Amino acid sequence: MATLHHYPLHPASRYVRLLLAEYGIELNLNTIVPWDSSGELVALNPAGSLPVFQDNQSGLIPGARVICEWIEDIYDESYLMPKTPVDRVEVRRMVDWFEDKFSREVSEPLVKERVIKFFDKDETISSQNLRLSIANAHIHMDYINYLAGQEAWLAGTQISLADLAAAAHISVLDYFGDIKWDEFPEAKTWYMKMKSRPSFRPLLADVIVGLAPARHYAVIDF
Amino acid sequence: MATLHHYPLHPASRYVRLLLAEYGIELNLNTIVPWDSSGELVALNPAGSLPVFQDNQSGLIPGARVICEWIEDIYDESYLMPKTPVDRVEVRRMVDWFEDKFSREVSEPLVKERVIKFFDKDETISSQNLRLSIANAHIHMDYINYLAGQEAWLAGTQISLADLAAAAHISVLDYFGDIKWDEFPEAKTWYMKMKSRPSFRPLLADVIVGLAPARHYAVIDF
Repeated sequence: MATLHHYPLHPASRYVRLLLAEYGIELNLNTIVPWDSSGELVALNPAGSLPVFQDNQSGLIPGARVICEWIEDIYDESYLMPKTPVDRVEVRRMVDWFEDKFSREVSEPLVKERVIKFFDKDETISSQNLRLSIANAHIHMDYINYLAGQEAWLAGTQISLADLAAAAHISVLDYFGDIKWDEFPEAKTWYMKMKSRPSFRPLLADVIVGLAPARHYAVIDF
Repeated sequence: MATLHHYPLHPASRYVRLLLAEYGIELNLNTIVPWDSSGELVALNPAGSLPVFQDNQSGLIPGARVICEWIEDIYDESYLMPKTPVDRVEVRRMVDWFEDKFSREVSEPLVKERVIKFFDKDETISSQNLRLSIANAHIHMDYINYLAGQEAWLAGTQISLADLAAAAHISVLDYFGDIKWDEFPEAKTWYMKMKSRPSFRPLLADVIVGLAPARHYAVIDF
């Protein structure tokens, strides 16, 4: 069986978990604390980042985008990357939006304040950085709300990698109750659809000891 | 004819210019100063980043990785993305290495100190940040030197998108003479091969007024 080296509140790891679950690919999860295990992680991936997919046949496949493009390349019944080039552009644009832009402006600073500094007691939480990342999140939520109001899914009429990447990042914010959902009704409807998929269930069961999720986090009809 | 919205000393823009030149795709270059034109850039790409490809048939295609995957999808005689999934993994891993890791640790801070602050006279150049980005560059050069010693090209026996992405980033450092080439003989041999390709010539002719390139920058056999 394959192994995914991951961290539960790491958005890119969640993105790959959603993809593998959509295709019913069974796997062991091996939790690595990315900010506290540089030696172990660099041995798996010279870039020193999660997630890393590993199995006997394929060896080590590092990085969420690399893993997801690879699964789309090899999996016969894949349905998360469109077949026409112009539709693939939109899916990849949105994946990069979340994996690059949303990650830098929201997920990384938020995880730093809410998770890394929770475990590293030497570091003081910056309420200013936390507020900034949540303010940035709501600018992004406006855009997601707009996209979700245009078509059934973020990159068109079919579910795609774009929805998985987006939901992975948003789910980490939602774990901490950081999204004012009432302001984004279209995004909320879309996120409820994502949450109701069987692939999402394992993410809703994640709990980090000492860091309880927001009360509505695991509720599909929230 | 298509247009590429770019900036001459922007590595991701150079990466796409190399790809399009490899395939002989003619285009107009439209220079946009990315840190000084947010309105114009956001109208082309909501993410507010370069490069953006534009033509009448395809509309706007934003982002280096998105553009390059799209060209590989549509161009019949493409040869820069391997056909087998396992080889594609290695090419995409290396592209992400440069577009993510090298970009954050080297290119972005270096361009900030050497280019953005050159034009923005209100900002003081940080010699500490500059030194750190160049020190990081030399850690990366060690890795590139190792890879270049293993096979003819960075991701295997054939030239690929990985070589173009790598050369695009390195060429910006080399414009400023920031690489101690004597310490990296294998990387130097590989970079000379890249520089000697016809696709590279337009990059070697780039000159930013007021910021002259290092003397060896345009010399193929340096």
